[in-house]
Amino acid sequence: MRISELSAKSGVAIPTIKYYLREGMLHQGEQTAATRAEYDETHLRRLRMIRALLEVGRLSVASIKKVIAAVEDESLPTHRVLGTAHYALSPAVDPEQTEEWRSARALVDDLVTELGWDITEEAPTRDELAQTIVRMRQLGLSIDLAPYVEAARRLVSEVEMDVIPFDGPRDAAVEAMVLGTVLYGRALDTLRRMAHESESARRLAP
Amino acid sequence: MRISELSAKSGVAIPTIKYYLREGMLHQGEQTAATRAEYDETHLRRLRMIRALLEVGRLSVASIKKVIAAVEDESLPTHRVLGTAHYALSPAVDPEQTEEWRSARALVDDLVTELGWDITEEAPTRDELAQTIVRMRQLGLSIDLAPYVEAARRLVSEVEMDVIPFDGPRDAAVEAMVLGTVLYGRALDTLRRMAHESESARRLAP
Repeated sequence: MRISELSAKSGVAIPTIKYYLREGMLHQGEQTAATRAEYDETHLRRLRMIRALLEVGRLSVASIKKVIAAVEDESLPTHRVLGTAHYALSPAVDPEQTEEWRSARALVDDLVTELGWDITEEAPTRDELAQTIVRMRQLGLSIDLAPYVEAARRLVSEVEMDVIPFDGPRDAAVEAMVLGTVLYGRALDTLRRMAHESESARRLAP
Repeated sequence: MRISELSAKSGVAIPTIKYYLREGMLHQGEQTAATRAEYDETHLRRLRMIRALLEVGRLSVASIKKVIAAVEDESLPTHRVLGTAHYALSPAVDPEQTEEWRSARALVDDLVTELGWDITEEAPTRDELAQTIVRMRQLGLSIDLAPYVEAARRLVSEVEMDVIPFDGPRDAAVEAMVLGTVLYGRALDTLRRMAHESESARRLAP
């Protein structure tokens, strides 16, 4: 297809497509004349992945380039590629040099071991969870995470994994993973706040 | 207690306490001399609520003033006060004038009715969920929300409601509600991403 059709099908404007081509985020099309190139499904798929990372995941162009480098590195197993996208979605957390922090981080590491979860040592989610635990302790909230672990495990294994096309091209898998993680996460957060409103109304009804 | 003790106990700096007093966010202490006032537990509680809204909820001072007005309005039932805090935590969403939007919003309203949830017509969570549904449909994701509704309902009614002191002073209830909603929400989101990493590693293991 020509660049105009690629633009129409992907919903990405032509100048933006040209920018991605210049930046190496999108591979060149097949040159069929001096000013004309042909694009195919692989270009469409890459553009869909970039859009998902940009618009739904709200990643910076620099972070998207890292995900693309992982997608294109054939020596990486697919779940490491998905991991790279996941890590890019995680907020940056600076570990604190305090006893509180070390204790919270140890609790997270023990939890991961206990659950038998296959998560790298470098996963930023470990520090992210440690930070939340530090705040909970400082504020006197219970840190019984068991019901949250159970809910997360069930939603991910029974629903969210099924929408990821593990067998297909990696950019399609990354796209599906980012969309699923972010959008189902938003829906869940909103539904929790709705349940809160309803439940407090019920408990406090005259 | 003197303002210095109030500051030490609340972790809020004296100039900040004076700012809250000037802005009417904190009620005046009892004047015991020309330059000296006595503060009590009600001041401490209010400062804790303001800190929770500001630091954990990341609300603006303008939004916090609205929550304080609700806390102080004795004609409002407590669950409406909690609702005001909840609504302040919700991102602002602009309804779109499209058929897609109306259909998503109708789906949300039907869901609330079906579940028998006690949620006001004006709850911003209705539009927030509608927006997520519009995005999901545009991106071709399934919108079977049942497992999310079930998870939200269970976590809220079995865990999160129990930490809110409904019988006590309203600012303590608002504080607990905000801390619980935001921090357990963060923990859940991180745990979902951890489960994602582990589950994809497991499914894709060689």
